[in-house]
Amino acid sequence: MIDLRHAAGADVRLACRNGELTGPTPGLAAGFVHANLVIVPKDWAFDFLLFCQRNPKPCPLLDVTEPGDPEPRGVAPGSDLRTDLPMYRVWRGGELVDEPTEIAKYWRGDLVSFVIGCSFTFEAALQTAGIPVRHIDENVNVPMFRTNIPCRPAGRFHGPLVVSMRPFVSAQMIQATRITGRYPLAHGAPIHFGDPAAIGIADIQKPDYGDPVTIHPGEQPLFWACGVTPQAALALAKPPFAITHKPGCMFLTDMTDGDLDVV
Amino acid sequence: MIDLRHAAGADVRLACRNGELTGPTPGLAAGFVHANLVIVPKDWAFDFLLFCQRNPKPCPLLDVTEPGDPEPRGVAPGSDLRTDLPMYRVWRGGELVDEPTEIAKYWRGDLVSFVIGCSFTFEAALQTAGIPVRHIDENVNVPMFRTNIPCRPAGRFHGPLVVSMRPFVSAQMIQATRITGRYPLAHGAPIHFGDPAAIGIADIQKPDYGDPVTIHPGEQPLFWACGVTPQAALALAKPPFAITHKPGCMFLTDMTDGDLDVV
Repeated sequence: MIDLRHAAGADVRLACRNGELTGPTPGLAAGFVHANLVIVPKDWAFDFLLFCQRNPKPCPLLDVTEPGDPEPRGVAPGSDLRTDLPMYRVWRGGELVDEPTEIAKYWRGDLVSFVIGCSFTFEAALQTAGIPVRHIDENVNVPMFRTNIPCRPAGRFHGPLVVSMRPFVSAQMIQATRITGRYPLAHGAPIHFGDPAAIGIADIQKPDYGDPVTIHPGEQPLFWACGVTPQAALALAKPPFAITHKPGCMFLTDMTDGDLDVV
Repeated sequence: MIDLRHAAGADVRLACRNGELTGPTPGLAAGFVHANLVIVPKDWAFDFLLFCQRNPKPCPLLDVTEPGDPEPRGVAPGSDLRTDLPMYRVWRGGELVDEPTEIAKYWRGDLVSFVIGCSFTFEAALQTAGIPVRHIDENVNVPMFRTNIPCRPAGRFHGPLVVSMRPFVSAQMIQATRITGRYPLAHGAPIHFGDPAAIGIADIQKPDYGDPVTIHPGEQPLFWACGVTPQAALALAKPPFAITHKPGCMFLTDMTDGDLDVV
């Protein structure tokens, strides 16, 4: 298998399409924009688009397709959202019913796809600045947690903010806050530093999604809004049908972090 | 009449509600966020929300209401979009049919309101930096033009980019570009400097909306994406019913330019 760490976004998509990549994408295609995926039927699309507009920290929109169109032309022309992710989740009535590696057999003409920014995008910038990213160094998926912070409701969608976590010593935290603040479309600056209980997280070693990582003495957890937030909202709103990416198994676009840098 | 130039956003809204302000808002409530307004029936709302998502330079979304709710709770709690603007435009089938000062009699339970950023927001920051804003100094509305630059289509919506124009000498242009780039939700950095014909503008002294302004020798026009762009798209898409603000007659929010500053 080729080394995808310094590949282009299109190379990662091709590896997914060929069945060569079926796992998490942290550290892959360094500098390219990773993205979350949410697919809902047209009659749920306005509510979900509104949920994203009202919750831009967890749901920064990069692209939205026309109903039935699997190609997000704005961020990855020529790609196919039905095959180009490592792993998907299929939802019926808010319940997870399948985790396939492609979704061609589930495709329908009324499906609207939402491509949402992901914090994996800024990890290359952190590493370039000499700030270690623990889950990449430990070769696992990022840990993600449901919090007690409510999202702003929109139509039938509501639910808690989901966050990703990376541990740092204090000086790294300050640098990471400054650097990631430049990328609002990749969730931007963090939302919390320190005590997990303050945002409703009971056990920092038991993430709700992804894998636990080591937190060394002197380090504290730094939390960013996460694009898995819609999956918590889907479980509560219970639309009859929906598809998402599997947490950590992102869609790679043709955009680079420089395209998102506001500074 | 009270001097609204250094009033709060809420004061300008109250002056509109009381019928004391029925004209353009440049220079009013300095430092507060001015906003464009587009109101469409629910069955056109997904297409319009998508149009905004795909065209964030002219259509940076600040808030979207639930159907029938005239209060944009995210940006101006307690306000009423039916009375709190100086002047409105009512559209039927893409035709302008009325320009009232309030829209209570037109209100319906299926109307969704879109509050969109406006370049008047960054004019206080320009003036603070010593950069003169011609239409404010000449006490007229900003000049706005339809260009030959197409927007990215979305559902039934398509049309040309509309721009606002402010004339500057070269050094001012550079400063104005840097300052306004900090406010992407107020249209951000300009899209063109110099030759109007290059973006399809035939006569810089004959704006399609607003008023002409003096361009002194040595000055050139600097153009920003404008929130009147949706009005050009409404005229082409011809929804059965829509309401907008009258160009230049903006909705004042409770947000300040500091809330939008990305630097």
